Amino acid sequence: MVRVAIIGASGYTGAESIRILLRHAEAKVTYLTALPEECGAMQEIFPEFRGRCELPVEPLDLKKLAASADVALCCLPHRVSMQFVPELLRAGVKVIDFSADYRLKNVKVYEQYYKTTHTDTANLAKAAYGLPELFRKQIQKTNLVANPGCFPTCSMLALAPLLREGLVETNSIIVNSVTGVSGGGKNPTAKFHFPYMDENLYPYGIGVHRHMPEIEQIATEVAGSPVRVLFQPHAGPFDRGMLSTVYCRPKADVNNERLLSLYADFYKGEHFVQVCQTAPAVRDVTGTNYCHVFPTFVKGTVVVFSVIDNLTKGASGQAIQNMNILFGLRETMGLE
Amino acid sequence: MVRVAIIGASGYTGAESIRILLRHAEAKVTYLTALPEECGAMQEIFPEFRGRCELPVEPLDLKKLAASADVALCCLPHRVSMQFVPELLRAGVKVIDFSADYRLKNVKVYEQYYKTTHTDTANLAKAAYGLPELFRKQIQKTNLVANPGCFPTCSMLALAPLLREGLVETNSIIVNSVTGVSGGGKNPTAKFHFPYMDENLYPYGIGVHRHMPEIEQIATEVAGSPVRVLFQPHAGPFDRGMLSTVYCRPKADVNNERLLSLYADFYKGEHFVQVCQTAPAVRDVTGTNYCHVFPTFVKGTVVVFSVIDNLTKGASGQAIQNMNILFGLRETMGLE
Amino acid sequence: MVRVAIIGASGYTGAESIRILLRHAEAKVTYLTALPEECGAMQEIFPEFRGRCELPVEPLDLKKLAASADVALCCLPHRVSMQFVPELLRAGVKVIDFSADYRLKNVKVYEQYYKTTHTDTANLAKAAYGLPELFRKQIQKTNLVANPGCFPTCSMLALAPLLREGLVETNSIIVNSVTGVSGGGKNPTAKFHFPYMDENLYPYGIGVHRHMPEIEQIATEVAGSPVRVLFQPHAGPFDRGMLSTVYCRPKADVNNERLLSLYADFYKGEHFVQVCQTAPAVRDVTGTNYCHVFPTFVKGTVVVFSVIDNLTKGASGQAIQNMNILFGLRETMGLE
Amino acid sequence: MVRVAIIGASGYTGAESIRILLRHAEAKVTYLTALPEECGAMQEIFPEFRGRCELPVEPLDLKKLAASADVALCCLPHRVSMQFVPELLRAGVKVIDFSADYRLKNVKVYEQYYKTTHTDTANLAKAAYGLPELFRKQIQKTNLVANPGCFPTCSMLALAPLLREGLVETNSIIVNSVTGVSGGGKNPTAKFHFPYMDENLYPYGIGVHRHMPEIEQIATEVAGSPVRVLFQPHAGPFDRGMLSTVYCRPKADVNNERLLSLYADFYKGEHFVQVCQTAPAVRDVTGTNYCHVFPTFVKGTVVVFSVIDNLTKGASGQAIQNMNILFGLRETMGLE
Repeated sequence: MVRVAIIGASGYTGAESIRILLRHAEAKVTYLTALPEECGAMQEIFPEFRGRCELPVEPLDLKKLAASADVALCCLPHRVSMQFVPELLRAGVKVIDFSADYRLKNVKVYEQYYKTTHTDTANLAKAAYGLPELFRKQIQKTNLVANPGCFPTCSMLALAPLLREGLVETNSIIVNSVTGVSGGGKNPTAKFHFPYMDENLYPYGIGVHRHMPEIEQIATEVAGSPVRVLFQPHAGPFDRGMLSTVYCRPKADVNNERLLSLYADFYKGEHFVQVCQTAPAVRDVTGTNYCHVFPTFVKGTVVVFSVIDNLTKGASGQAIQNMNILFGLRETMGLE
Repeated sequence: MVRVAIIGASGYTGAESIRILLRHAEAKVTYLTALPEECGAMQEIFPEFRGRCELPVEPLDLKKLAASADVALCCLPHRVSMQFVPELLRAGVKVIDFSADYRLKNVKVYEQYYKTTHTDTANLAKAAYGLPELFRKQIQKTNLVANPGCFPTCSMLALAPLLREGLVETNSIIVNSVTGVSGGGKNPTAKFHFPYMDENLYPYGIGVHRHMPEIEQIATEVAGSPVRVLFQPHAGPFDRGMLSTVYCRPKADVNNERLLSLYADFYKGEHFVQVCQTAPAVRDVTGTNYCHVFPTFVKGTVVVFSVIDNLTKGASGQAIQNMNILFGLRETMGLE
Repeated sequence: MVRVAIIGASGYTGAESIRILLRHAEAKVTYLTALPEECGAMQEIFPEFRGRCELPVEPLDLKKLAASADVALCCLPHRVSMQFVPELLRAGVKVIDFSADYRLKNVKVYEQYYKTTHTDTANLAKAAYGLPELFRKQIQKTNLVANPGCFPTCSMLALAPLLREGLVETNSIIVNSVTGVSGGGKNPTAKFHFPYMDENLYPYGIGVHRHMPEIEQIATEVAGSPVRVLFQPHAGPFDRGMLSTVYCRPKADVNNERLLSLYADFYKGEHFVQVCQTAPAVRDVTGTNYCHVFPTFVKGTVVVFSVIDNLTKGASGQAIQNMNILFGLRETMGLE
Repeated sequence: MVRVAIIGASGYTGAESIRILLRHAEAKVTYLTALPEECGAMQEIFPEFRGRCELPVEPLDLKKLAASADVALCCLPHRVSMQFVPELLRAGVKVIDFSADYRLKNVKVYEQYYKTTHTDTANLAKAAYGLPELFRKQIQKTNLVANPGCFPTCSMLALAPLLREGLVETNSIIVNSVTGVSGGGKNPTAKFHFPYMDENLYPYGIGVHRHMPEIEQIATEVAGSPVRVLFQPHAGPFDRGMLSTVYCRPKADVNNERLLSLYADFYKGEHFVQVCQTAPAVRDVTGTNYCHVFPTFVKGTVVVFSVIDNLTKGASGQAIQNMNILFGLRETMGLE
């Protein structure tokens, strides 16, 4: 039985991780922490856990954590994670980190987008990017997984087959995404106040969203040469899930048959990526760890539609998938 | 042309008032004020007013207001209104006040529910309760209208015919209401954060909601004897509108025919109250100043369903209706 | 491993049953049926099952069902169920029936509310009412469970302690409920068309809802004497979940402390009923098999708030709970 | 006073037209028609009109229409409009047609996309395309306005300045749009059933949407040379409004300053198009006839965001704007 600590249990990804672990046959939550002002009984922070999770949420005590957990899910904000991760690793605890602190290999890019100095470049070098469908082997060998961002997960599962195959031009890719509001976290803000967000839809992060360099880094790694992506996110009036509509210019002749067979081959044996032959919908994956992807050829352009649940495949579900890999468990465990 | 100032223009009822006044043939907005930290161009506070309302929102300047407006819509919170209303009246400006400060005639009840000392009991005594369908004559004669709460408007339009007629017992009335979220105002809170409120519904204010004594006061006035009301509000996942389901025990034999004719008679000539013969829906009145009310007799109980838009008939629309009365205009002007 | 057939797999409760069974350690879906025109691959009917459930949905073949399943979840409409249940039982298959056909013990009441002749009164007499918290012993002994309606489940879990204790008058109970739209099933209708239902809320089934006699029957059984309930449902703009607000007149002095201790005692050891000390919210139970119930005393009235997910505790989750009981499994299995 | 008939009053655009005309100072609804099976009192078809519109909805009688109306708003489906328009024009009634029958000047393209033979090419040649910001002069001179589709309105107001100026390449324009559900009309369908559409988002009409050739025709007309547009619509979980995110490759150096000044110049004096300097939101224009448009330069690409209410500027509001032009009224009348 894998013993799991959750650091940052009072937020949405912490709660989603607990939901999944409650159904996991070979893992269990043993320790929950949060900022001191957000501590208390888990079932008071999220009443849905009444009778299901009796653990208290406590201020982080590293010794206690190390004694009670084999792995820590670090559901912390950017910049905060790297203050804790080195000690966790030293204490022999494996870490799956939800922040961006160990995702961007180029420290300069990290520091530019996250406006801070990176303080743990040693571990950054060792971290595996936790998108199992693309980097499973690296994940198997690491103690530190950088759990991917939701948009990069959704976008890269759409783009990877095209880039690996060299089928599309790499300087004019457009990723147009719409995300549910849970991606913005639990703190109330004017932009996500119900009477504002309800019946609304709007773009944000125009030209500056932090997932853009993350997408470009992974795209470049998959393509083997520099890839440039124009990523434009929007927020929509729903809680969970996201859709990416990806537009690419093909280098050569393409047709739907070839696209479908390329994607089917690429994702053969991948349980959590389903290649569809019709348009997917956000609801098809809500509450699941699945990505539904549909590539098609329209008016000279390759268009790929990709949907995931931002809190599951885009965060906590993928983290548990990574955890299963780290501990040699069946990869789908707890995620059925 | 009636010149209208809006005090508290940066909130939802302020914006709704402007929306209505933009379509009003005989009134126009001339002056907008808000707390200093909420001032700026109206079209930046609410981008929907781009090109429609060029007025700035300024800190309140009483002299300027008195020079530019015939009437002030006071869209201020409870307790704050009574700090401004006396001066406005002294300056010769008519006032329609959206707060509760001039609604509860019993100062003790006010002070108990609003946890403050009432500082303007002189004007309190003179204020008319601005529910035109019940108190039009008083409104015609006043300079200070206490614009009713949304729940009291919705509930009293359902209850008034029964109470005036003496048809139901007055010690066991239950008002079960569900309101849209805009009623909670513009400030983001955990309870109204989109990912929490979306797909949700919950009771609040159990036994302590401030509209309960207001409903009881008006009910008592209409009945001519003390009325006791158990009022239970709930918040639902929609922006605007509310539904009250009212349960009363009849004193004597009742049937649907008698109920419908009672309501039809009571509201004859009332443009904004429509007596229905089937169940109303919140959407039937969204964005309008109408109340749809449907009385029926079920298993020995009189059940009355009543719907309004909380921001229109429950706030700004009713205020403009009152303004029309104050200035001798056609009562429906701007509210078609 | 319990083998489960689902009859009526193409509807919402069929899909929800599969979702739960996919996570069940000791049961698995072996056979799916639907009306001929609704058959096909499960993952085409509900794309969320892509890669998760490869079973086809076939027209019902009783022999095949009997050979492949130990229990049938009958997700059929009223009147249709009783055409199949007798044969299923004769074939040695246990049945959990989602329709009302085996719920109402009084055939006359059934025939009045469901406008049809009951054709299987023999099995009706033997069926257990599948609300485990109240009738676990009967369920343990039966082969035919009448899975309760969603409103009766939500309402009776709120009412049972009061009725068992004889604490409230039994001729004036009011149950005001708001349900999510999934309760209306999968077929598109004008009332549940998105642009109509969105931002809407309305009462329906006024005085005639079929769950009213069901609530009264169970209430009467629990109280040991006739109980009369005025049940008023409403539909609200959310997918899953429901809230009942129950109003009762106490026979004697009551206070919050006594209410809470009564409910705590009554539901001691009941995993799926959580007695709360503050207002529950629909979202607290969405996607779970839990009921959160909060009894309180307000202005002389006992008010009980109760929330469930209509598709889980109100349908498929409760069915799996009943299945677990029928087969001697841990009652919470698959429902964590 | 302009007298207005509405043909197809039982649908969403019919109702929206009435809503606007109820507030119009110089026009009034005089005659409402619908298919025989959809006739009845307007206030029973849409209860929101109780007390506001007493007109019956009748089967179309051309003589009666010609006698009672100066203009007909033809809110009919494609293919049906062209059966009525010739007679209306012959009877001396001006026509504003909401269908696509008079929008596509190339009959072959029309017949390919609408799968029917065009039966009124004579009037097709005379019809003006009713996007006043681009074709006001033609509208002033016609008796037949082809009211534009919602997506073409939203997209072309975003694209027109770029195309007129020749600033972008015309063979690689991408228009990614998300629309509210009211665009799909009033008939309930599986795709727009509340429990399906709620919390959902999905692409549709991939490569085949009928607004694609309409956008290309107008774009080509504005640019003065052939324009190719990849238009991809999506449906989102909201009632009204739409957002287009338009991606274009610039021919030459561009920057934000130049883009903003280009748009400001192009739309100078246009009341209903507001050029923004920050991201617009769908809610900023809900219920209004405005288009908010924001052009910006991101990573080598010109990105333009454009929002309208699909039922107002995208249909009925624009129709009234056109009507105002046809009759020489102030263009904003009824649309404040």
